[in-house]
Amino acid sequence: MRSELLTELAQQLRVDSVRVADMAGSGHPTSSMSAADLAAVLLANHLTYDFDRPDHPGNDRLIFSKGHASPLLYSMYLAAGAVDESEFRTYRRQGSRLEGHPTPRLPWVDVATGSLGQGLPIGVGMALAGQRLGKVPYRVWVLCGDSEMAEGSIWEAAEHAGYQHLDSLTMILDVNRLGQRGPTRHEHDLGAYTRRLHAFGWHTIEVDGHDIDAIDAACNEARSTVGEPTAIIAATKKGRGVASVEDKEGKHGKPLPDAAAAIEELGGRRNLRVEVRKPDPAATDPRTEVGHLNLPRFDVGDEIATRDAYGQALTALGSARGDIVALDGEVGDSTRTEFFSKEHPERYFELYIAEQQLVAAAVGMQACGQIPYASTFAAFLTRAHDFLRMATVSRASISVVGSHAGVSIGQDGPSQMGLEDLAMFRALHGSTVLQPCDANQTTRLVAAMAELEGVCYLRTLRGKTPVLYGPDEQFPVGGSKVLRHSIDDRMTLVGTGITVHECLKAADLLAAEGITVRVVDMYSIKPADEVTLQAAAADTGCLITVEDHHPQGGLGDAVAEVFSDGRPSPRLVRLGVRNMPGSATPAEQLRGAGIDAESIAAAVKLLTGTAVVR
Amino acid sequence: MRSELLTELAQQLRVDSVRVADMAGSGHPTSSMSAADLAAVLLANHLTYDFDRPDHPGNDRLIFSKGHASPLLYSMYLAAGAVDESEFRTYRRQGSRLEGHPTPRLPWVDVATGSLGQGLPIGVGMALAGQRLGKVPYRVWVLCGDSEMAEGSIWEAAEHAGYQHLDSLTMILDVNRLGQRGPTRHEHDLGAYTRRLHAFGWHTIEVDGHDIDAIDAACNEARSTVGEPTAIIAATKKGRGVASVEDKEGKHGKPLPDAAAAIEELGGRRNLRVEVRKPDPAATDPRTEVGHLNLPRFDVGDEIATRDAYGQALTALGSARGDIVALDGEVGDSTRTEFFSKEHPERYFELYIAEQQLVAAAVGMQACGQIPYASTFAAFLTRAHDFLRMATVSRASISVVGSHAGVSIGQDGPSQMGLEDLAMFRALHGSTVLQPCDANQTTRLVAAMAELEGVCYLRTLRGKTPVLYGPDEQFPVGGSKVLRHSIDDRMTLVGTGITVHECLKAADLLAAEGITVRVVDMYSIKPADEVTLQAAAADTGCLITVEDHHPQGGLGDAVAEVFSDGRPSPRLVRLGVRNMPGSATPAEQLRGAGIDAESIAAAVKLLTGTAVVR
Repeated sequence: MRSELLTELAQQLRVDSVRVADMAGSGHPTSSMSAADLAAVLLANHLTYDFDRPDHPGNDRLIFSKGHASPLLYSMYLAAGAVDESEFRTYRRQGSRLEGHPTPRLPWVDVATGSLGQGLPIGVGMALAGQRLGKVPYRVWVLCGDSEMAEGSIWEAAEHAGYQHLDSLTMILDVNRLGQRGPTRHEHDLGAYTRRLHAFGWHTIEVDGHDIDAIDAACNEARSTVGEPTAIIAATKKGRGVASVEDKEGKHGKPLPDAAAAIEELGGRRNLRVEVRKPDPAATDPRTEVGHLNLPRFDVGDEIATRDAYGQALTALGSARGDIVALDGEVGDSTRTEFFSKEHPERYFELYIAEQQLVAAAVGMQACGQIPYASTFAAFLTRAHDFLRMATVSRASISVVGSHAGVSIGQDGPSQMGLEDLAMFRALHGSTVLQPCDANQTTRLVAAMAELEGVCYLRTLRGKTPVLYGPDEQFPVGGSKVLRHSIDDRMTLVGTGITVHECLKAADLLAAEGITVRVVDMYSIKPADEVTLQAAAADTGCLITVEDHHPQGGLGDAVAEVFSDGRPSPRLVRLGVRNMPGSATPAEQLRGAGIDAESIAAAVKLLTGTAVVR
Repeated sequence: MRSELLTELAQQLRVDSVRVADMAGSGHPTSSMSAADLAAVLLANHLTYDFDRPDHPGNDRLIFSKGHASPLLYSMYLAAGAVDESEFRTYRRQGSRLEGHPTPRLPWVDVATGSLGQGLPIGVGMALAGQRLGKVPYRVWVLCGDSEMAEGSIWEAAEHAGYQHLDSLTMILDVNRLGQRGPTRHEHDLGAYTRRLHAFGWHTIEVDGHDIDAIDAACNEARSTVGEPTAIIAATKKGRGVASVEDKEGKHGKPLPDAAAAIEELGGRRNLRVEVRKPDPAATDPRTEVGHLNLPRFDVGDEIATRDAYGQALTALGSARGDIVALDGEVGDSTRTEFFSKEHPERYFELYIAEQQLVAAAVGMQACGQIPYASTFAAFLTRAHDFLRMATVSRASISVVGSHAGVSIGQDGPSQMGLEDLAMFRALHGSTVLQPCDANQTTRLVAAMAELEGVCYLRTLRGKTPVLYGPDEQFPVGGSKVLRHSIDDRMTLVGTGITVHECLKAADLLAAEGITVRVVDMYSIKPADEVTLQAAAADTGCLITVEDHHPQGGLGDAVAEVFSDGRPSPRLVRLGVRNMPGSATPAEQLRGAGIDAESIAAAVKLLTGTAVVR
């Protein structure tokens, strides 16, 4: 498209952004107006996209990392004919696909944005999938705001993109000088961004973000740059084109005061239609082979850490399916993804100690058809909480595996102990939360995760645990296993992971004193096995949950949730980690937290009235 | 200390690091050995510290951001005479202050480390406190590892330190080339770090990290550099001094294979004692004035957003106490900390959109005697989850305030909605979790937070809510308010924040149909008011919790926890946000989530058997 027409298109995008926010009575028109010229050039001259086939593997990826500029994105869709005027007018209304911030309710939106600093690291995941896995070539365009450059996640992404030479990735940085509450740190000092990105290995181009020809040239340069990601660093003005708001503070996130006058100042409504270049219609994603799955098999009684079983199972899964990818945060020797890395190095992604980028890459890759397993210590997954939260808004299906759960890791101390991870994952919308206690259970659950939708979490243990189950045992998600059961059960012990073994030992101790208890292995924490728990409640009247996790948000809460259905509830007791651990052996830690076999047995005796009070 | 002696001291630190890990049977001696020369020079020639008075305001701050190098830190303490040999030998044993990673169980450790990338941003908070608040001058020394430079939080800190010209801050970067599982991204390319840090506004010095004189000169240069933070970028070898491990992969995080031989190779045990330079003994922290607190007062029936009340109360608190500081993530106009910024600009800290740095700065400042309130959207606090987790290990007392909680924010959509925040904060060790529903309640709780220990969270609302309580009403932490109560109560509605008002409306709807219900305002979610909840259970037999939060980890779980004490439990039902919201008005959102008055009333009728099934 020629410059004059592009200028008109940009004005149309501005007018439509103003219009749509005005109709909605809320939104971010000024943040859209600054980037309208960038968007017009990109849409008309550089984006490759078939709006009729959003799942086309050859489509470019377009991410509005500054998701609040949704009026601009939807105005682009309107100009491309993807949405019509009647749908356009539903912006921000109940039931509309045009939400305040973009989500995959719209088929052309791969991932949700709106929490700043996430679009670029997710784009890194998409570019990695495209460049490293030999997919159909596509470019990844990420529109970033200048405010979000303060987020560390941007620099995790900048580092990884530079290091991995992701030349299919282009960041378009809309330096409009004004954040939500005032000027950004660097205002219009483009050099500040250039120096930083250049130092991180990027090709950088500074442009006047309202100069159509300069933008066009920069996009061409980005497309022809080899071996480096490109940042187009564009000086723009927030609210560009309307004097009453242009480059003015206090105009963030609200409709223009006089939309009609603003539209007139912008030259009135236009009705340009853009024919976006489509990818080669013949291009298809190489079919992923799915072969027979040979999961490792472990003998009952052997001692195997569940993290070891995870590493072996993931490797086997990777052998069976070509779409499995493994990602790690530079602790693959601990999480045991290194097993996978040796067998399938081309599908192993080392993200270094950057957990936000780790999860973001997984989200980006699943949007490109991969089945990612992202692993690090359970404790350090808290670093990526906001990315996990946004992954649910993105309707992303990712498997996340956290090792070194709980105090049972021993001497390394509380900084390394996952004690809040179950709470974090359980509170995510649509999540699945699993914690196996033995090796065969682990392998089955690892395989099952590949088929699950949403964010799926598996918690593994550092230390070895005895194999309880045979290799052919089934472990459906949402199920549990009753390991001890008699008609005389006075009480039910509910364990998960390491505490299953403590519960079994406690049951033995109690049995020696004539007290029989039921033991349930609740390997599926969310969803929980309501049937088994309700039966245990009916039979024994009292459930004691035992977890190597803080008492809040984890197993105890999950079991209590089952009994929050308005029906009469059993007596419930929860044992969990209430102290602040220090260094100690694993056994000392379990004892110190009151979740070892002796502590459990003591609790049962107290509750059954058989304890001797001295 | 002269070079020859410093060389000996460094060898002593190596020997002791090897010794202590060997005695413990675990630990990170090789990561300690790389930094031993840096540590020796710092301790003997540059650190100002009175080990007998760890609370001395003139003490320098020393943070091992690479907390796994604890053997080195403790060897420094041994050399300084702060710990003796018998305590030294307790490293990593149960009950020892010498934990696997440093924590404030030791009086010379201000903040816990062990989750990488946290020491530097916390150091930024300390330097900010020192330089911006006119405290007694001290320097902040942060020892970083090269692996942790991949963490985005490091770059949030680098950006803020450069921008704020924090010349009291020195980063000593131990570039030992090897991470946990293999080489780092940049290995020994010091220039990679230099270019990046220089671009972020740092003064940089590259040194051979085993050249005592070069290190000494670099420390002198750091101390005399004005207007910029300094990074001493030191090329080192992991395991330096012992050929079998030096610069070799696979030697991370484990004792040396033959400690005795290694000690011999290092020249054997030494017993050097370092006299660390003490600060001016007369220097004292300027006394903080505490004046009369004039909290804002609101009239019952007025409509005020709790975030507005927060901003006003914080401002009043800042007027009464000079040690109150406010920090924000560039959304002060939304969180209302901007009220504070106008009244007390010298104690207002804008951290821009960098939530990890936001919380880290608060942690650093509280270690320097301030009482910090850190605010951003509730949703975006998830970005700082790992920092909040580590704050509890640091025994830090910080107030954190999250605005825009829940679906009730309306049109902006799920990316902006705090729906997991209660779960996150509730699962933190020793935390307090508060959610006021009106303005007067807010002000009282904001004032109370200043006195609380640990991580204290307050959740505020975007929209206005009617003032229910008079300005003289008291709201003790751990309490609740019974807003409707009769002897005929068929059921209890438990609300918090916005849902208190929906519960009240539901009670009115039900009363019109002859169904009386109790209404409890559970403003203190952790600790919960067990007495009131138990009484409600005894009186009404059934509790319905209603929360603008996912059903997991928040109010529903908190109430269920109260009834997990082994005693018979009432019937429990939880209403919460089970759908994935889109854009809609606040009223539509509450209805869509089933937590508005009509939905609550319908639930009550269903449970009391008075619903008409059509």
